[in-house]
Amino acid sequence: MSRDLSKLFNPSSIAVVGASQFPEKVGAIALKNIIISKFKGRLYPVNPTISNLGSLKFYPSLSALPEIPDLVVIAIPAKLVTNILEECGFLGIKNVLIFSAGFKEVGKEGAALEKKLIEVASHFQLNILGPNCLGFASTEPSLNVTFGQVVTSPGKIKFISQSGALAASLFDWCQSTGLGYKDLVTIGNKSVVNENDILTHWLPELTLSDSSLKPVALYLESIANGQEFIKLVKQITPFNPVFMLKPGKSPSAAAAMRSHTGSIAGEDKVLHAALLESGIIRCQELGDFFDLGEAFSWNNAPTGPGIAVISNAGGPAVLTTDTINSLGLEMASLSSETKQKLQKSLPRMASIINPVDVLGDALAQRFGEALEIVLQEKTANSVLVLLTPQLMTQIEKTAEIIGQLSKKYPKPIFCSFIGGSNTALGQKILNQFQIPNYSYPERAVKVIALMWQWQKWRLSHPSNLFPKSNLPHKLKIREIIKQALRLKLPTLDNQVACDLMKAINIPVPQSKTINSVDEALLFSQENSFPLVLKISAPGLLHKADIGGVITNIKTESELQTAFETISQNRNNFLIKSSHPAEIQIQKQISGGIEVILGIKRDPTFGSVLLFGAGGRYAEIFADSNLTLLPLNLEKVKKIVTSSKVYKLLSGFRDDPPYKLDKLYQIMLALGHLITDYPEIQEIEINPVIITHDDTWALDPKVILNNK
Amino acid sequence: MSRDLSKLFNPSSIAVVGASQFPEKVGAIALKNIIISKFKGRLYPVNPTISNLGSLKFYPSLSALPEIPDLVVIAIPAKLVTNILEECGFLGIKNVLIFSAGFKEVGKEGAALEKKLIEVASHFQLNILGPNCLGFASTEPSLNVTFGQVVTSPGKIKFISQSGALAASLFDWCQSTGLGYKDLVTIGNKSVVNENDILTHWLPELTLSDSSLKPVALYLESIANGQEFIKLVKQITPFNPVFMLKPGKSPSAAAAMRSHTGSIAGEDKVLHAALLESGIIRCQELGDFFDLGEAFSWNNAPTGPGIAVISNAGGPAVLTTDTINSLGLEMASLSSETKQKLQKSLPRMASIINPVDVLGDALAQRFGEALEIVLQEKTANSVLVLLTPQLMTQIEKTAEIIGQLSKKYPKPIFCSFIGGSNTALGQKILNQFQIPNYSYPERAVKVIALMWQWQKWRLSHPSNLFPKSNLPHKLKIREIIKQALRLKLPTLDNQVACDLMKAINIPVPQSKTINSVDEALLFSQENSFPLVLKISAPGLLHKADIGGVITNIKTESELQTAFETISQNRNNFLIKSSHPAEIQIQKQISGGIEVILGIKRDPTFGSVLLFGAGGRYAEIFADSNLTLLPLNLEKVKKIVTSSKVYKLLSGFRDDPPYKLDKLYQIMLALGHLITDYPEIQEIEINPVIITHDDTWALDPKVILNNK
Repeated sequence: MSRDLSKLFNPSSIAVVGASQFPEKVGAIALKNIIISKFKGRLYPVNPTISNLGSLKFYPSLSALPEIPDLVVIAIPAKLVTNILEECGFLGIKNVLIFSAGFKEVGKEGAALEKKLIEVASHFQLNILGPNCLGFASTEPSLNVTFGQVVTSPGKIKFISQSGALAASLFDWCQSTGLGYKDLVTIGNKSVVNENDILTHWLPELTLSDSSLKPVALYLESIANGQEFIKLVKQITPFNPVFMLKPGKSPSAAAAMRSHTGSIAGEDKVLHAALLESGIIRCQELGDFFDLGEAFSWNNAPTGPGIAVISNAGGPAVLTTDTINSLGLEMASLSSETKQKLQKSLPRMASIINPVDVLGDALAQRFGEALEIVLQEKTANSVLVLLTPQLMTQIEKTAEIIGQLSKKYPKPIFCSFIGGSNTALGQKILNQFQIPNYSYPERAVKVIALMWQWQKWRLSHPSNLFPKSNLPHKLKIREIIKQALRLKLPTLDNQVACDLMKAINIPVPQSKTINSVDEALLFSQENSFPLVLKISAPGLLHKADIGGVITNIKTESELQTAFETISQNRNNFLIKSSHPAEIQIQKQISGGIEVILGIKRDPTFGSVLLFGAGGRYAEIFADSNLTLLPLNLEKVKKIVTSSKVYKLLSGFRDDPPYKLDKLYQIMLALGHLITDYPEIQEIEINPVIITHDDTWALDPKVILNNK
Repeated sequence: MSRDLSKLFNPSSIAVVGASQFPEKVGAIALKNIIISKFKGRLYPVNPTISNLGSLKFYPSLSALPEIPDLVVIAIPAKLVTNILEECGFLGIKNVLIFSAGFKEVGKEGAALEKKLIEVASHFQLNILGPNCLGFASTEPSLNVTFGQVVTSPGKIKFISQSGALAASLFDWCQSTGLGYKDLVTIGNKSVVNENDILTHWLPELTLSDSSLKPVALYLESIANGQEFIKLVKQITPFNPVFMLKPGKSPSAAAAMRSHTGSIAGEDKVLHAALLESGIIRCQELGDFFDLGEAFSWNNAPTGPGIAVISNAGGPAVLTTDTINSLGLEMASLSSETKQKLQKSLPRMASIINPVDVLGDALAQRFGEALEIVLQEKTANSVLVLLTPQLMTQIEKTAEIIGQLSKKYPKPIFCSFIGGSNTALGQKILNQFQIPNYSYPERAVKVIALMWQWQKWRLSHPSNLFPKSNLPHKLKIREIIKQALRLKLPTLDNQVACDLMKAINIPVPQSKTINSVDEALLFSQENSFPLVLKISAPGLLHKADIGGVITNIKTESELQTAFETISQNRNNFLIKSSHPAEIQIQKQISGGIEVILGIKRDPTFGSVLLFGAGGRYAEIFADSNLTLLPLNLEKVKKIVTSSKVYKLLSGFRDDPPYKLDKLYQIMLALGHLITDYPEIQEIEINPVIITHDDTWALDPKVILNNK
C-alpha cells in the first residue's frame, strides 16, 4: 500500500517542465537551485521555445528526453498541468513535483482542476508532491528542488511543512542562527503525497537506534488521516522527537452540541490528546516550533526534570525558578560535594545553592568554573546559564568558555543572555558552538520542559497491547440496536439505554418503565425510597430542561404527587415530540462522587474516551481528560489519575481513597461497545456515581448513527 | 508624610564620595557618567587622597565642600558608609545615593550594617536611594548617576527596577531597538526610599491629562507597603499604563493552611487580584516586560479589542487568529466598504476578509495599499502586519512603507516579520519608525492583549466609593468576640459562629446546641426533617475529618442512631482536644448551588475576599476570584460574574438565573465585619447555598487573632 518515494527524493535524473530563460520565473529559479545544490544526476530542462541556455541543453517535451526521468518538476500554469501529468503517465514516469498554484486553494475552478489532477495521478499511480508547494531540499546528499532561497548547511532535523511561506521563514531563521537541516519537504495542497507518505518513507531511518537524535518537525494545517498518522508517529517517537505546530483551533460551538462530551471534547482537545499519547510534542506557538528545532538539533534531550541554573543576577534567577516550578520541572538539588566545590571556587558572597549566583562582577572564568562543577552534578539533567550584561561582564569570553565546556560534557546546556546589542555578540558565539540561547530565561525553560515531556513519555514505555472485546449478551445488544434503528430513533430511550448497560455488565440502579401510580408504588415497596422519576424518550438528552426529572422522592405521598407532575410534563413534551415517551422509575443513589464518561467518534482520530468531573459541573470546570481508542487498563488509569476530580477520588481530607476498578471496567466495556457496534455514534454517562461500595451508571445516553 | 525627592533626582550640586582616579572603580565610572551626561550643576568629587584629576578639583571630605550638595553619591565599602551618613546628617545634607553592596543581601553582618544605616537615616531624615543599587538616570534633563553603561536616548517610559542587573539588560536592549526612556531608578535594597516614594514623586507628572502616554515599568522583587502602593497606582492608572514584573511566585503550602481560603487565595493570587483591580498590567515573563515597554512607548493603546491582520501567508495568519481568539481579543469584522476597497486593490486570489491575505507574491506596494485601507476601518482598533520572507518579498521596502503610513494614521500598528537574518533588516527600519516588531505573531497579539487589558480597565471607570459599615448588633458581636478571646479560643465554635452570622443578618439554617437525644427529637418536631448533626468545637475547622458531620437524617430513629454516633465521635475528639465540643443540630438545606466565601488578611495587601465554587469542589477546581477590601457592590458583583460557577448561577440549560442580591449583601456584611473587628483574622463560609428562594450560610468558620 505504501508509496515508494525513494526516487522522488533521491532522483538520478530530473526533468524541469517550464524551465525558463527569464531568471525571475519559478522554473528558472528551480533549475538554478538544482544546479547550485550540486545535483550529481542528469538534469533535463523542458521548454519547447528554447534549445539551450549556455551549455545546458533544453528539450522540447518530456517524450523527447533520452531517458525516463526519476522526477519531473512542473512549473507551468495550473491549467496546463493535467496534460503534462497524462504525458508523464503514458511515459511511465512515477514521480512528479508540482510548484504551480491555482488549484483548490483558489476556489471552485481550481478545485475542479485539482480533482482532475488526483484522477490522473490515481490512474497512472503517480507520486505527486504538491501542487502549490515550494518543493523540497536535502543536505545529504545535497539537493535543492525548490524555488526559494534555501540555506544548505547540513544538520539533523527533518521538516515537513504544509506552508511554503513558513518554510521561507524557517530558512531565513536557520541562516541567522547557523542551524542546519537534513530534509525539508513542503507538501502544499498534498493532493496525492501527504505527510503520512513522507513519514513512511523516512521510517527506516527514523527508527534506527543510534545515538544521535533526528528530530522531526511538522507544520500541518490539516491532518490527512489521523489514525494512520498516529500509528506512524508512534513508531518514530520512541527513537526520535517529533514536534508539531498546527494552526486553526476552531472554538467548539458548544451550544450546538448534542452532548456534554461533544461540547467538552472539541476537535482541538482530541487533537491534543492524540498528540500527547503518541509522544508528539505540540507547539503552542510559532516560537516553540523554531526553538525546539534548534534545541533538538543541538542538544540531547535532558534525561530528567532537574535543572541547575547559574546566573550573575538574582532577579532573573528567581524568574527562572518560578518558571521551572510552574512547568513541572525541578530545581536540581545540588549534592554537598558540588556545593563544597562551588564554595571553594566562588567568592564568599556567591550563592552555592541552586540557582547558583556567581554575582554581578563575575568574569568569564568564574562562570566557567561554576559551570564545570555543575556539569558534573548528577541531579542536574540540564544546565541553564543566565547572563545579564553588567559592567564587568565578559559577554563573548563567557560564551566562548561555555562553548568549550559543552564539547567536554555531554549534558545539555542552554543559555539566556538577556539584553540586546551586546548580548547578541555572545549569542553568535554560543550558536557557533551549537548552544541554544534565548533572549529571556522563560523561553529556555519552556524548551527544556517540552524536551523533557518527550523524554518522559519515552521512558514511560506506554503499552501497545489492547485487550480484545469480550462483551457478553451480543445477541441482546444487537437486538436493542436493530429495534431502535428500525424505528429510526436518534437515541435509545433512557430505560433501553439502561438495559444496554446492564447487558454489558455496567451496573445501573434498579429501574423500570411504569404506566401507573400503582406500578410506581409497587416499585417503591420492592426497592425502598428515595426514588427518582424520569421521562424516558429517544432524542431527549437533556431531560431536566423539560421538567423530566424529579429526584429525592421519599414517601408514598411524595411519589403520588411526583407521578402526577411528571405525567403532565410528559404530556406537554409529547405534543411537541415525534417520538414516544415513557415514565421511568429508578432507585436514587445518594452521596458518592460524580464523574462523566463519554465516547465520541472524532472525524480525524476515530473514537475518543472522555473522563472528568461529572454532574452539572462537567461543562463548567471542563475537567477534560481524553484518550483515543483502543483502550487498555493503563490508558484509562492514566486519564483518571490525571484528572482534576482524581483529587477527590484518591482520598481528600478524611475521605478514604475510592476503589476504581469498577470504573475502569466500565470504561473498557464502553470502549468495546462503540468499537463492536458501528451503529452507535456516541455514548455518554453523566453522572457515573462512585461510592465507597459501588459504582453506578446513572444516566446513560446512547446516540445512534442512523443516517 | 511624603518625602521630597525633587533634589535627589534633580540636584543642582552632586558630591561623589569615593570618586577615584582608577577608571574601573565604581566611583570613577559614576563620576564619568555624570560628566558625560552633561550635568549642568556643580560636581564635587570627594577623596582625601587626590587633589585633582585633570582640571577637576577633588575635595578631602564632605565638610570641605564650598556648599551643602543637593545629592551625595556614596561609592565606598559598606563598612565605611554609616560614618559618611552621619557626616551628611550633621552637615544638613538631605539626599544620598548609595551604590555600595554588602548590606542585608549578604547575611547577618550586612543586615546589622543596614539596620544602623536605617537608624541614621531616620535620625537625620535622610532620603537614601539604595544601598546595593545601580543609581538612577534621566534623559530630560539629562543626568546619569549610575555606574553602568547607560543609553541616553530620550523617551517616554519611566522604569523602577529593584535589580541593577535587570537594568543593565534593559539598557542593552534599548540600545538594540533604539528605544529611549525618561527615567530609570534602581532602588536596590530600598532600605529608605522605596517604590512608593518614587511613584509619589512622579505623581504630579503621571496624573496630567495630556495626550502622550507616559508608561511606568516596575520590576519589583518585593512590595514595600502593598496598600499604600495600590492607593498610589490607582491614581496613575487612569492616566498612564503601569506594568509590573515580580519574580518569586512562592507555591502556597496548601497542606499547612488552616482554611480553604488560605489555601486557594495564596500570596501570588492576592497579588494578582490587587494588580488587576488597580489597573496594573502584570507581566508573566521577562519578555512581556520588555515588549510592553516598547509597545507603550511607541504606540497608543488600542481603543478596542478589534484587530485587523494583514499577511502574505495563510498559515501564520491562522496562528494569529487562534491567539487573538484565545486571548479575548477579536478579529475586526471589516465593513463592506473596506472589503470593496480591498477587492479593488488586491489580486483576485487575495483574501479580503480579515485576516487579509495579500498573497505570497505581494510586493511592498501591495502591503501598503492593503494597510492604508485597513487603517481607515473603524472596527479595527489596531493592525498587525505579518510578513514571511518569500522569494519576491521586499522586506526593507515594505517596512519603509509601513513606517510612512504609521506617521499618517494614529492607529497602533504592530508587525511580525517572521524569519531571521533577512527580516532583521526590516525590523531595524520598523524600529526607526517606532513600530514594534516581533519575531513571532503570538508575541504581538499578547502585547496587544495586555495593552487592551489596561485600556478596558480604564474605560470601565471603576468606582472608588465604598459604603460605610452599618452592621447591627454591635454590642452582641463585641461580646461574642470578647468571650472567645477570654477563653483563648483559636476559632469560634460552630454554633457561636452561626449566632454571629445571624447578628449581622446573614441567614443561617435553624440550629442549636443540644445535650440529649430528647432535645434533638424536640428540635426535629419544631423544624421537620431532614436534619444534620455536627460537632461544634473551637479550633475544629474540618469537622468531617473526625466524623463530625452526619447529614440527611430523615426519621426519628435515624436521628437517635445519629445522635449516638456523633456523641461517640465527640468523646473520641475530646480525648485529644484541649477545647470543649458541643453537638449542634441543624436543619438541612437541600439542592441549590454551593459557593465558598472567605476573607483573609494578606500580609502585604490587607484583607481580601474570596468567592468561588464551593463545597468539596472548592479546592479542586480552584475557582479563585479575589478582590481587596474595602468592598462595594460593583466589586463583589465583578468577582461573582467573573467566576466559573457563575455559569451555573446565571442560569444553565433549563435552570433559570438565581437572584444574587442576598449573596452580595452577605459579601458586603462580611467585609464590614472583618474591617470593624480586627480581632477576627479570617472568615470562611463553605458552602453558602444559593437556592431560587434563599441564600444560606451553612458552615461559617471564624478564625480569631488571639496572639
